[in-house]
Amino acid sequence: NSKARQLVMELARQLNFHPVDMGPLSLSRYIENIPIQLFPGWKGPVLAAVALSIFFFGYSFARDIIHPYVKHKQSDFYKIPIEIVNHTLPSVAITLLALVYLAGQMAAAHQLYSGTKYKQFPHWLEGWLQSRKQLGLISFFLAAVHVLYSLCLPLRRSERYLLLNTAYQQINANVENSWNEEEVWRVEMYVSFGIMSFGLMCLLAITSIPSISNSLNWREFSFIQSTLGYIALLIATFHGLLFGWKRAFDEDAYRFYLPPSFVVSLALPVCVILGKVLMLLPCVGHKLHQIRKGQDTTNQAELCEMHWINHLLTDGLQEVIKPLDILT
Amino acid sequence: NSKARQLVMELARQLNFHPVDMGPLSLSRYIENIPIQLFPGWKGPVLAAVALSIFFFGYSFARDIIHPYVKHKQSDFYKIPIEIVNHTLPSVAITLLALVYLAGQMAAAHQLYSGTKYKQFPHWLEGWLQSRKQLGLISFFLAAVHVLYSLCLPLRRSERYLLLNTAYQQINANVENSWNEEEVWRVEMYVSFGIMSFGLMCLLAITSIPSISNSLNWREFSFIQSTLGYIALLIATFHGLLFGWKRAFDEDAYRFYLPPSFVVSLALPVCVILGKVLMLLPCVGHKLHQIRKGQDTTNQAELCEMHWINHLLTDGLQEVIKPLDILT
Amino acid sequence: NSKARQLVMELARQLNFHPVDMGPLSLSRYIENIPIQLFPGWKGPVLAAVALSIFFFGYSFARDIIHPYVKHKQSDFYKIPIEIVNHTLPSVAITLLALVYLAGQMAAAHQLYSGTKYKQFPHWLEGWLQSRKQLGLISFFLAAVHVLYSLCLPLRRSERYLLLNTAYQQINANVENSWNEEEVWRVEMYVSFGIMSFGLMCLLAITSIPSISNSLNWREFSFIQSTLGYIALLIATFHGLLFGWKRAFDEDAYRFYLPPSFVVSLALPVCVILGKVLMLLPCVGHKLHQIRKGQDTTNQAELCEMHWINHLLTDGLQEVIKPLDILT
Repeated sequence: NSKARQLVMELARQLNFHPVDMGPLSLSRYIENIPIQLFPGWKGPVLAAVALSIFFFGYSFARDIIHPYVKHKQSDFYKIPIEIVNHTLPSVAITLLALVYLAGQMAAAHQLYSGTKYKQFPHWLEGWLQSRKQLGLISFFLAAVHVLYSLCLPLRRSERYLLLNTAYQQINANVENSWNEEEVWRVEMYVSFGIMSFGLMCLLAITSIPSISNSLNWREFSFIQSTLGYIALLIATFHGLLFGWKRAFDEDAYRFYLPPSFVVSLALPVCVILGKVLMLLPCVGHKLHQIRKGQDTTNQAELCEMHWINHLLTDGLQEVIKPLDILT
Repeated sequence: NSKARQLVMELARQLNFHPVDMGPLSLSRYIENIPIQLFPGWKGPVLAAVALSIFFFGYSFARDIIHPYVKHKQSDFYKIPIEIVNHTLPSVAITLLALVYLAGQMAAAHQLYSGTKYKQFPHWLEGWLQSRKQLGLISFFLAAVHVLYSLCLPLRRSERYLLLNTAYQQINANVENSWNEEEVWRVEMYVSFGIMSFGLMCLLAITSIPSISNSLNWREFSFIQSTLGYIALLIATFHGLLFGWKRAFDEDAYRFYLPPSFVVSLALPVCVILGKVLMLLPCVGHKLHQIRKGQDTTNQAELCEMHWINHLLTDGLQEVIKPLDILT
Repeated sequence: NSKARQLVMELARQLNFHPVDMGPLSLSRYIENIPIQLFPGWKGPVLAAVALSIFFFGYSFARDIIHPYVKHKQSDFYKIPIEIVNHTLPSVAITLLALVYLAGQMAAAHQLYSGTKYKQFPHWLEGWLQSRKQLGLISFFLAAVHVLYSLCLPLRRSERYLLLNTAYQQINANVENSWNEEEVWRVEMYVSFGIMSFGLMCLLAITSIPSISNSLNWREFSFIQSTLGYIALLIATFHGLLFGWKRAFDEDAYRFYLPPSFVVSLALPVCVILGKVLMLLPCVGHKLHQIRKGQDTTNQAELCEMHWINHLLTDGLQEVIKPLDILT
């Protein structure tokens, strides 16, 4: 058997091919199966992104287009292609990024609750844990498009007209200096935080390229994806809070009784960051560390050993280990 | 033989090397040959890009610099480093992208005409089909540089002076509101389409990174490169049309009797999109599908079988199959 | 032994795993060792980048914030988050890029001085040569963030207020046209050079992705990393010089007797470019070529042969050969 295989490979090599031994004939079903599904693993995350996009687009549309039209008969429909889209993109991006880390916290909570790492996660959580890479990449893509949209804002003709009109008003009102120190600081800070957060997300995305992630060892990959990822989320949240500033406490901002969209989109990230802070507290963190080291307060270890081996045989080692230990 | 090889590899491994078996000695000529040529496969596409760049640069130069100088003694030479370059880049980029898909349509036309997929393509078409990846990547690179140039437009001192002068004029003419709804919509739309098109081209480019394209299966790769690619071309064409707006029908835009450069650069993309629409028509599409499935109205199949095997032995399997079935 | 190994691999394959033969048990220590260090090889370059960042940040802070505050009681602290950072980033980036090529020139000087390529480099130079990839990637990352910061400049509220105030002043002074041809040309040129340099650095960075650099042959990799890299450095230096313009010769620019920061950050790049010009001179270049071809004026070749083999056995072939021949 082994000799025949080598003979075939030798022959193929002499024909200038690069033969790859993919195992015995019994694996052919698996190999042939590959092309049947289009982007397995991307379906859930893409659906989540689409659903969130529709929600946030509708929300911004209601607040920023419908409300001024209904209230003041003001037609701001020109804002749809850029401004409304550019409100939707960062909201979806930061929510998806928060979902990446929420999955890990759910897993940690499950482990803390059951007191062991040998108890299987519920099916939905396992699916969620396995699609974190996709969620993160979609989040990065949307953030990148948000950056592009934001940078294109000064290119717009509407920006130009509004600036010219403001100049006209300033001169007619004879205001020599329109400088507003608070506004200046707010914008400098939120632009700055936005760039920092995006820079970190670029690092996260680049280390997801297979040939780069393969060249990293376990601790390096976990450092970038978990530690840097949380920092990126934290800075992105500050970026959003600085963008919103005091408007969350301003009554006029509650159009149709709806809070400003940054409040809605930052709710989840703030919760996730608080959850992380909770897990870093010594009492919780120590117990989690014990569980991850293999401590088992329920004697389930032996019971589940069997289940685990089954798991390994069907899904491969990586898919099982990764969701447990990284990104939490 | 096989035993000696394993012994050598064992020895190398103990010396901390990672031996790779590249086949018998007869292959050494092939392996040694590799470094002789610098970027084989990039020569044609790069030459095409350079030729197109020179053409479009000269065209814009004549229309936007020479014409105002000759006609109105107006010296706009400051526009050369950024504005003229930024007219040239998108024109070359969209033409190259159209050329990528034109190759596939040529191949389809050849197959429809000869009624079989077993007839060899002419030599020039085969070379063209094989350099589509390079054409696409150059197109993406130029599009990315075009994005950078466009985003830098508001940084220019000239933009600032022109804006200040416009403010001066508006105030002297006592125009309170210079808003032009049509202009606003046009610019919001064309910026928006530009971003979308570039976003899709980013996906196309990223999936060209070897380690990523290897992790995709056949149908996924074809979906991204063919379907998404056509959509990117379509949106980029809209981007160009919205940029041009009604100027194609404006007599003043025909300086030196030359049409505006967007008309010239969009001619090919529009043809390619029409060609794709034609190929999606049921009658044409069905026949093409039959041919690609192996139907042969000319009994050439047997005759060519021999040619094909020769082909496979020299070029490797992929290079032969890929040009036929994807990207058309 | 070999048979048992194949049996184990066969078994693993039937369990759906992809076994990789990493050698005998004696290598396990090496394999297990991998995850102990976090980013080995990045420590030095990151420290260099941090030290340079602190220096250039402090320098800009003293000149652009402290000086106007001390001299004219003018509070420009709002400039810290964006403007000062955006002065620091390009300075560090171009210095790091210059350091990449300075290492190669040091190696060449060492070879010229000792008249042979068989004499070992001093330890510090070898470490420097081996960290050029990391230096280059950090330089690219900082350059990319610099691009982002620069593109965000027109988004700032401060920019807007200053423009409106300028408009107010222009109208009150009744200046119809504030056009300044020299300023226009300077900015158009330096923006243009900046984009070109960044475009080239993108190519350098992309060809550092493992799966792409693996698909390049020796000469292609060396062409991109050495020739294109030097061109990128040259254009980036022009970008800096055009940004500075005549300010280096302006007495007012020497605040606290400190030269403008572009003078400080361009000193090293200019030296490196002059060094390269020197090495391209026929007399020097010819001698270097002879040495690299193996000429030895000191009869050290035999003496060092032994050292080299030791080297190969510990560090692997690539790490030893690469620093000698590329990027110089």
